Amino acid sequence: MTEPLRSGLTGRRFPVRYRVRAATPEQAREAAAALALEQSVEVPLDAVFDAAVREHIVGQVLDVQPDGEGAFEVRIALAVDTLGDDVAQTLNMLFGNSSLLDAVELLGAELPDSVLRACGGPRFGIEGLRRLCGVQGRPLTCAALKPQGLPPEDLARLCHVFAAGGVDIIKDDHGIADQSYSPFLARVRACQRAIRQAAAETGRAALYAPSLVGSPRALREQARILQDEGVGAALVAPALVGMPVFHELVAEHLRVPVLAHPAYAGAARVAPPFLLGRLFRLLGADAVIYPHFGGRFAYSEAVCKAIAAQARETWPGVRGSLPVPAGGMHVGRVPELVGFYGMDAMLLIGGSLLRAGADLPQRTREFVQAVAAAAETQAKRAAA
Amino acid sequence: MTEPLRSGLTGRRFPVRYRVRAATPEQAREAAAALALEQSVEVPLDAVFDAAVREHIVGQVLDVQPDGEGAFEVRIALAVDTLGDDVAQTLNMLFGNSSLLDAVELLGAELPDSVLRACGGPRFGIEGLRRLCGVQGRPLTCAALKPQGLPPEDLARLCHVFAAGGVDIIKDDHGIADQSYSPFLARVRACQRAIRQAAAETGRAALYAPSLVGSPRALREQARILQDEGVGAALVAPALVGMPVFHELVAEHLRVPVLAHPAYAGAARVAPPFLLGRLFRLLGADAVIYPHFGGRFAYSEAVCKAIAAQARETWPGVRGSLPVPAGGMHVGRVPELVGFYGMDAMLLIGGSLLRAGADLPQRTREFVQAVAAAAETQAKRAAA
Repeated sequence: MTEPLRSGLTGRRFPVRYRVRAATPEQAREAAAALALEQSVEVPLDAVFDAAVREHIVGQVLDVQPDGEGAFEVRIALAVDTLGDDVAQTLNMLFGNSSLLDAVELLGAELPDSVLRACGGPRFGIEGLRRLCGVQGRPLTCAALKPQGLPPEDLARLCHVFAAGGVDIIKDDHGIADQSYSPFLARVRACQRAIRQAAAETGRAALYAPSLVGSPRALREQARILQDEGVGAALVAPALVGMPVFHELVAEHLRVPVLAHPAYAGAARVAPPFLLGRLFRLLGADAVIYPHFGGRFAYSEAVCKAIAAQARETWPGVRGSLPVPAGGMHVGRVPELVGFYGMDAMLLIGGSLLRAGADLPQRTREFVQAVAAAAETQAKRAAA
Repeated sequence: MTEPLRSGLTGRRFPVRYRVRAATPEQAREAAAALALEQSVEVPLDAVFDAAVREHIVGQVLDVQPDGEGAFEVRIALAVDTLGDDVAQTLNMLFGNSSLLDAVELLGAELPDSVLRACGGPRFGIEGLRRLCGVQGRPLTCAALKPQGLPPEDLARLCHVFAAGGVDIIKDDHGIADQSYSPFLARVRACQRAIRQAAAETGRAALYAPSLVGSPRALREQARILQDEGVGAALVAPALVGMPVFHELVAEHLRVPVLAHPAYAGAARVAPPFLLGRLFRLLGADAVIYPHFGGRFAYSEAVCKAIAAQARETWPGVRGSLPVPAGGMHVGRVPELVGFYGMDAMLLIGGSLLRAGADLPQRTREFVQAVAAAAETQAKRAAA
């Protein structure tokens, strides 16, 4: 007999997937049962006296399957009602306490419609970014203003070089904040002026994406400056400022596309494709930056492929998010990157461009041309 | 010759410690050099053309020491100026990109005075909590309202039992949010009423610490409700709501002591003593909850000791934070816990109390009495 629903209880559930290290199936089943309690009521089952809570709130183990040597994939059905249509609380129910368990990794979840509606995903997405940049049929290009420590006028000079050279989006290095040697307002104003000047020269406007970082109040103020100065994009690290803040900032304070940066993501404890490709997308990132394999970071080819897939694949009601492979890329890898990701990507080259020194305008043009050429090759190959 | 300082550059530095997995000292030195760049300018050194940036911004490797089999401790001096006196940016410089490197763990940092002043640490701290609770010479006690799914009146009934039983602080389970079956305002009002009623009966008021979770806007609203209802404390998970948000909430919107919850901390990638004991303290946590060894979580005895040490040890200008060992504790472990932590701790027992069912008032009294008895034994032993 089904327990009658308490006021506010719908009884709906959604599945969450975890990878659990365990020596035997028996151990894995025990771990799964413990997880189901930990991510719902956080008490032993024999301390749950309320019948409605037992039936509609306590997590339920759906299945436990071997997943390679010494590991199991566990699926648990959590109650939709526990999420309260809130970003922070959703993270809490997905991986609040279990993030502290060494043997557990959050793999993914089929998030319920109520969470999708509450979050909304990207406001521009891939098509919106393409439209704003006026780019079809090739990957977008992106360059980074760095190193931090330079005064605004030097960053603006770099910005002009990139914009005049035809780069689509020019972002601040994520380490650039509101520092005394390069205050936010002065820097953003100088760089946006450089963008406009380059547009006047070339007839084509790049988007500048300043790095927004700080407390909620500071972020709101920075968003206001972006609007006042007519800046075309923004860079924010959700794990750094806090994922719920990131979402509120995107949903309520920014009218331009947002690039999510992975700083502080400590993604090893949440599967990177889920954290970067799925959650950051869901929170409203129009593009998601992550380390491409063979660069400075340890992500494998398979992880990169999966991040891009999660960011781009069809998800009813949620726009796609543009993958931005980065982290030690250089112009020589452009053909390979275009081959790997196809057109719906943004290629970000940072230090390798800047290494050119006095040859930077030339190196920048080479980058832009390499992308165009690789896209053309790719398109021909596809047509053949 | 020293490069003259650019406007806004002080040239000051502070040391940050990382553990790096490497097979040989040579590899470790290479990794250290790469870390110094990653956590400062994020470009190869040969892409840094500005002399002031090279001298005053680029990270400097201080030393590389063996730290057990296949690992090294690396100390890097980062530039204070890069922090911009901001919480989010400080996290970014400590472990922004490097959190993505599998082989690197952030161990700690001697944070500069400017960051200490910007953060401020606990507003009440250990002494303030003791004063508010009217407790000296024994650990504070804490119980949890759970399971989630119960309506406000049931949670309030539990709250009354705990308060009448003499528990010092009664906190919401961290899974309790603003859910339809137990809306924030109704729940907080009901539980605070229970606290007042118990105080009228016993002559001694417990503190109620509701769980605050949500976006910055929701958190501000919840903080306002706490103030309107005369609630005495709050529970917040910094890693969940975002550490910069947590700090702003504490510094600007809460007038009561704050307990930090470790949910979503994924602390395996940042050394738990540093994240929980040091950073959460610095951000303003008056008490820090974490899993005690031998409970449901994997923290070792050494890690627990270190968390408590970091939370409590003398830190000029920053109040101490009260360690709250938790995660599967029960009354039988009280003597051991008091022996391990001494007086400056808060003992949190959750599910094990609730398991008592109808005997809950009795079990609660046993808990309170066990703490008093253990403290007395401990005090006698110290006097002997």
